[in-house]
Amino acid sequence: MRMSHSGGCPCHNCQSLKQLGNSAARAGLGLIGKHNAQGGRSYATPVDSALTKEYAFELAASNVRYGEGVTNEVGMDFANLGAKKVGVFTDSTVRDLTPMKQAIAALDTAGVKYEIYDRTRVEPTDVSFGEAIDFARKQQFDSFLAVGGGSVMDTAKVANLFTAYPDADLYEFTNAPIGRGTPVGKKLSPLIAVPTTAGTGSETTGTSIYDDTKTQSKTGIASRAMRPLLGIIDPLNTETCPVSVHVSAGLDVLFHSLESYTAIPYTERSPRPSNPLARPAYQGSNPISDVFSMWALKQTVKYLPRVAKDPTDMEARGQMLLAATFAGVGFGTAGVHLCHGISYPISGLNKTRAKYKHAGYQVDHPIVPHGVSVALTGPAVFEFTAPSSPSRHREIAQVFMSEAGEDTSAIARIPDGEIGQVVYDCIAKFLVGTLGMPRGLKSIGYKDDDIAALVKGTIPQRRVLDLAPGIGDVQGADGAQHLTQVIERSMAY
Amino acid sequence: MRMSHSGGCPCHNCQSLKQLGNSAARAGLGLIGKHNAQGGRSYATPVDSALTKEYAFELAASNVRYGEGVTNEVGMDFANLGAKKVGVFTDSTVRDLTPMKQAIAALDTAGVKYEIYDRTRVEPTDVSFGEAIDFARKQQFDSFLAVGGGSVMDTAKVANLFTAYPDADLYEFTNAPIGRGTPVGKKLSPLIAVPTTAGTGSETTGTSIYDDTKTQSKTGIASRAMRPLLGIIDPLNTETCPVSVHVSAGLDVLFHSLESYTAIPYTERSPRPSNPLARPAYQGSNPISDVFSMWALKQTVKYLPRVAKDPTDMEARGQMLLAATFAGVGFGTAGVHLCHGISYPISGLNKTRAKYKHAGYQVDHPIVPHGVSVALTGPAVFEFTAPSSPSRHREIAQVFMSEAGEDTSAIARIPDGEIGQVVYDCIAKFLVGTLGMPRGLKSIGYKDDDIAALVKGTIPQRRVLDLAPGIGDVQGADGAQHLTQVIERSMAY
Repeated sequence: MRMSHSGGCPCHNCQSLKQLGNSAARAGLGLIGKHNAQGGRSYATPVDSALTKEYAFELAASNVRYGEGVTNEVGMDFANLGAKKVGVFTDSTVRDLTPMKQAIAALDTAGVKYEIYDRTRVEPTDVSFGEAIDFARKQQFDSFLAVGGGSVMDTAKVANLFTAYPDADLYEFTNAPIGRGTPVGKKLSPLIAVPTTAGTGSETTGTSIYDDTKTQSKTGIASRAMRPLLGIIDPLNTETCPVSVHVSAGLDVLFHSLESYTAIPYTERSPRPSNPLARPAYQGSNPISDVFSMWALKQTVKYLPRVAKDPTDMEARGQMLLAATFAGVGFGTAGVHLCHGISYPISGLNKTRAKYKHAGYQVDHPIVPHGVSVALTGPAVFEFTAPSSPSRHREIAQVFMSEAGEDTSAIARIPDGEIGQVVYDCIAKFLVGTLGMPRGLKSIGYKDDDIAALVKGTIPQRRVLDLAPGIGDVQGADGAQHLTQVIERSMAY
Repeated sequence: MRMSHSGGCPCHNCQSLKQLGNSAARAGLGLIGKHNAQGGRSYATPVDSALTKEYAFELAASNVRYGEGVTNEVGMDFANLGAKKVGVFTDSTVRDLTPMKQAIAALDTAGVKYEIYDRTRVEPTDVSFGEAIDFARKQQFDSFLAVGGGSVMDTAKVANLFTAYPDADLYEFTNAPIGRGTPVGKKLSPLIAVPTTAGTGSETTGTSIYDDTKTQSKTGIASRAMRPLLGIIDPLNTETCPVSVHVSAGLDVLFHSLESYTAIPYTERSPRPSNPLARPAYQGSNPISDVFSMWALKQTVKYLPRVAKDPTDMEARGQMLLAATFAGVGFGTAGVHLCHGISYPISGLNKTRAKYKHAGYQVDHPIVPHGVSVALTGPAVFEFTAPSSPSRHREIAQVFMSEAGEDTSAIARIPDGEIGQVVYDCIAKFLVGTLGMPRGLKSIGYKDDDIAALVKGTIPQRRVLDLAPGIGDVQGADGAQHLTQVIERSMAY
């Protein structure tokens, strides 16, 4: 072990070493450091060690362009990029709507060639991703355009990725343990993303989520290389969105911001990567994601109720789109945790157990929209995470109470041990009272008998559970007990 | 004119047209729009017209990586990029300091080849830029690394740009009217920027500033294409920075945030560009830059005094680096205005008129450090701009007063007409009382006789003056009178 730090050296390495103690020294922990010429602190060279916590974070967000009507600029953008053939990804619904028509007209006006793929599946699967990849590989696309919600953008990202890797299978880059989680080393073709809902924030992230039918679990691919070159944030594009979709998508924004703001600090994540390329997209909360997440939280608590009440409220719609984008930058850097982790079995088991069909969704099968499935455990999750950072949860309570016009002067005096209950009440009130959401898992049809299955379905969501403060080892009794506790507290409120 | 909007249509085009009236219609204003199939608002297609104001803005910030010691990762970054030969830009001072040594060691460890250019001039000129460009063109660099302050980063950017355009001269891309202001259409080589001061924010922007010796004026090149691929924000790198440089650089951050927060709204800028490529880097304030600028303002007012008092305060140094980066994103998107505009003649005329030499700078000639020259007009500038948005200036006063521990409960009740005076006092108190800066232009040696020359020297700074709310036409008597007023109020406080 090459080190020349003194015993009292305050540098990150030495502090870490102090914690690690002699056992790490005996293990020959590969930290390299030297004091600099000025006699100051040394620089930590990150060398692989599963024992060492992270010391850095990276923000890699897409460019965004905002304005009413900016969709019409995408033709010029592709012409400016020198695009020869654009792969345009959408779904069968959005294909007939104005945002898509505008985008296509823009390509035509600019004289840019393209092919349209509209067989994107809402809530994509390994199968639907595979079909999109097969389509893209047969074409000679040098650039990509996605017009739609998160499913469309996520599908375009994987089509782009696997065109650059013509021989790779989906599991090459899928998160471990389901996939092999290989880092993406190549530079991909430019992708411009045009969201038509204010929700996923996928236009700013390098994440694609899908249902793996083989293992019956939600997983995904996350790499900075996949993020769009440009997100087109055009408030005119959410005009055709039904109110129920506005609200569900807005709840996704709300919990992106809440979960990323309360995720474990990036310095608590391990292992420290041996190469910056291996630093994951979901890094834990950090000073930059905090600013984005808190801003998005405030905006959502303020403007989502306005959109729910009057979807023609153009200011509120524009602000929600910005909030979705900001929350995307926040969780795209910091990650999400329990609400998203538990939402997957809530959706997955709905077909066979709860059989809930959310109002306003024109489908002939049971459906818990993604945002709703995420929101259902919201009160209990932040009650559970409150002890990890009472001050952050106090801020959260303040946001909800201020917007509700309540007196917030007493918040500072609430004991740390009680702030969880206050946050629980604030979130429940917002969901049920303000937005008319179901009053917990029971009201969508889950029973106490289902709790064990919901816990079991959550445990494989390691990628997000690892970011949940205080959850413990979810493979052990400790973590399972915590999940049970959160789900029990989510049954009714 | 192809339009099918009805008289009462609330869309952006129609609203703009209403303002423009029949004269625009007679002029055949090239706006194209059509109502969509859903009968909703139409999409504005931006078509060139000097009469039409902007309707969109774009955020294009660099990726950033933050952490104590992340400088050591740049070798792996270039290896990951497949770099064959890196052009390393620094200056003769930084060359011998730890940040540069760490960066070079990282390149060596990763086995990446490089050549060092250390003849960067502090406050670069067309001549010094030309030398750096000549150097770069003779090499076969496929990537660039900048280690230093703003001058170094700006020099590396132009070296990169003009390597991609081997036949272009400096004025091809220099802002009009000094240069031809041609938009940069090519994709440049990757540049990684490692700032060693918490000031310019150049690691996140596509701007390079220089003194044009031919016209004796400050100008620059601004293009999103030039922005670094990655900014390395390493608090260990400002350890070797002298206190006086910390403070001056920190003042630059302060006024980046204040000026960008108060710049004209992006929707007040004209003309609307005919192609997104022609949308300038400095676009006016917008909802995204506002978040960055306000955050940077709060951080700077909180942490700069701590760094000034104790430069070993690691937390404060780290926060100032983040603030510099955030302010860089803010002003890199929104722009700066009067403080920066007037700072150029303040520095330029110092040699012959004021002859001020700032304490702590080891030079044998008069010098007003950039941040100090910007700060000198601070109180008067925001007194002047207050009527353009009393609410924003109230927020600014609140930030200063809160941090000073003053009672802010009365701010909401201050009449709009008096908020300018309050902001004047807050900023003056912060500069003089907290940071010990000179008490105005007189205290650095300027006399009332110099005011006319300072005004005359400011007028050519159109690129930034255009973003100053309420300044009027600086080519006419109106604008000159406003500048005179601001400079008079900056003589002593």
